[in-house]
Amino acid sequence: MIETDIVIIGAGPVGLFTVFEAGLLKLRCHLVDVLPRPGGQCIELYPKKPIYDIPGFPDILAEDLVYNLLKQGEQFQPGFTLGESVISLQKQIDGRFLLTTDKHTQLIAPVVAIAGGLGCFQPRKPEIARLETFEQKGIDYSVKHPQDYQHKKVVIAGGGDSALDWTVCLADYVSELTLVHRRNAFRGAPATVDHVQSLVRQGKVTLCTPAEVVALHGDGHLEAVTINHNQQDKQLKVDHFLPLFGMSPKLDVFREWGLNLEKNAIVVNPRDYQTNIPGVYAIGDVNTYPGKLKLILCGFHEATLMCHAAFEMINPGVKSSLRYTTVVGVEGFDGTHKPAHKSVLKSFE
Amino acid sequence: MIETDIVIIGAGPVGLFTVFEAGLLKLRCHLVDVLPRPGGQCIELYPKKPIYDIPGFPDILAEDLVYNLLKQGEQFQPGFTLGESVISLQKQIDGRFLLTTDKHTQLIAPVVAIAGGLGCFQPRKPEIARLETFEQKGIDYSVKHPQDYQHKKVVIAGGGDSALDWTVCLADYVSELTLVHRRNAFRGAPATVDHVQSLVRQGKVTLCTPAEVVALHGDGHLEAVTINHNQQDKQLKVDHFLPLFGMSPKLDVFREWGLNLEKNAIVVNPRDYQTNIPGVYAIGDVNTYPGKLKLILCGFHEATLMCHAAFEMINPGVKSSLRYTTVVGVEGFDGTHKPAHKSVLKSFE
Repeated sequence: MIETDIVIIGAGPVGLFTVFEAGLLKLRCHLVDVLPRPGGQCIELYPKKPIYDIPGFPDILAEDLVYNLLKQGEQFQPGFTLGESVISLQKQIDGRFLLTTDKHTQLIAPVVAIAGGLGCFQPRKPEIARLETFEQKGIDYSVKHPQDYQHKKVVIAGGGDSALDWTVCLADYVSELTLVHRRNAFRGAPATVDHVQSLVRQGKVTLCTPAEVVALHGDGHLEAVTINHNQQDKQLKVDHFLPLFGMSPKLDVFREWGLNLEKNAIVVNPRDYQTNIPGVYAIGDVNTYPGKLKLILCGFHEATLMCHAAFEMINPGVKSSLRYTTVVGVEGFDGTHKPAHKSVLKSFE
Repeated sequence: MIETDIVIIGAGPVGLFTVFEAGLLKLRCHLVDVLPRPGGQCIELYPKKPIYDIPGFPDILAEDLVYNLLKQGEQFQPGFTLGESVISLQKQIDGRFLLTTDKHTQLIAPVVAIAGGLGCFQPRKPEIARLETFEQKGIDYSVKHPQDYQHKKVVIAGGGDSALDWTVCLADYVSELTLVHRRNAFRGAPATVDHVQSLVRQGKVTLCTPAEVVALHGDGHLEAVTINHNQQDKQLKVDHFLPLFGMSPKLDVFREWGLNLEKNAIVVNPRDYQTNIPGVYAIGDVNTYPGKLKLILCGFHEATLMCHAAFEMINPGVKSSLRYTTVVGVEGFDGTHKPAHKSVLKSFE
């Protein structure tokens, strides 16, 4: 059982910045994300894209922003539960929330902050019979550790950035790698497309287009897939099948918890971004309120105001105080201290 | 007469970021600031202090943040009127606002954004008879160009960072420099205090403590000051007297314009940060609304929402569209283009 002050659902840029603002108020955070690493869309969808509208950065790569935010928050020692999604939220008798993930991790906290981006991304799943049977038993929707695929026979399906990037990465580990795509054309960064093409020429990757995985075989663990290639079915022995068709937003779970939704987002009040359930907040792209703009910089502001509201909820009757980091520095939970630049009073005599 | 889309009063970090967000919506900005350079408090009060709570910067010096914001906005060619303060605001028949500064500069725009920080800083003036008579005629409250003091006799009064920093800087230009302070102790960065002390030892700066300037003399231009030093009056010939006692917030002018004030701040609605005068917005530390936190990062968010509201006011019936810089890049008014990172559709065959 993980106990903390704020459980943050979603480890994208807004969730990560929440750790820092909560830390300034001496609140501890634990982040849960369905993705295998922190960073959300910035890492999963566009790590190498420059962002131009983060204040103070004429340009910054999405992955660098995430790296900086992790660094900014690390003094406050956030906990991470990655590769899992929260499937249930229950209010306890003591007023705190009990959260449970799809992998049975349990978390308990007085405040929950949903920072789920464009709706807590779920992998887009192909329609193949018995797909769920083989999940985590040969079928993975994302790569956590490339070394897990060492000397394995792997099929990747997909035609976008994600399929191409992981083809390049896993080619160094696997014993056999087949890339299956419904069309002949791939959509990706030019350099990555070229790289995959050269791996195909070198025989390190087998290309199957236009093709689709249409059936799965195995007893317990996945053992083979049927690929329909140029209208012909053929069976291929595999250890792993990675359908990488991107992520799609999914808000159903929030509706089940009783949260008010509107325009595919969670309705919050624009004062502190609290939802209709007291103690549950929604910040960043996942929320909506009059005038809402889905920008990372707005999520930073929302996270900050939310943390002050959370502080007052956790410490009833105590007013959250705003202490300027330029004046007092930053005290980490890990014992580190970022000092304020101090003027000294000094006599000339 | 300067015509623009948005007149921004205050060129601190929030005013500067407004230029960028307005530019994304094809709106032009002109900034007016009483200080001689952009950056507001960050430059005037704590340029060398690290700030720890700007999202994405584990730490950044205040002056570097300003530099970055200037760079981020420069594609949108903002205009600057510096060293002047807006003293009147009048609504014209065509609905636009006519603004006039204390130095008779006139500006006209459909939207005014007050980004005045902790209240449009005004220099803190000492109580000396005929002080106003000599303003800009020997008395300056800030240094615009150090070379203006070349070969001049100068008296600086004050005991803080500003007095110390300008003593160090002007010592290289002037023919005579006297530093007057009521107490013997100075408050400043240790290195600067030491530097001033060494200038005193070298005879480049004359130190007068405990002392005060108590009278001003001259016919038209300032010619001399009377200094009360150790209870004794003495007269000193000077070309310039710089009372550098810091800045103090002043909101009176906004009250005169008819803006609602509360808690020494301008009341705005929390949806788009508009004041009680339609077309006049207040953003950053100068405003107040329920839940307000006086943080730079909140000002960035407020500036962004305000620009979208301004767009819809300037273009009635047209909805402002949010275009992601990661997807479309940034088109400058100066012909420059920051490109989006594009995926390409490429066939392997």
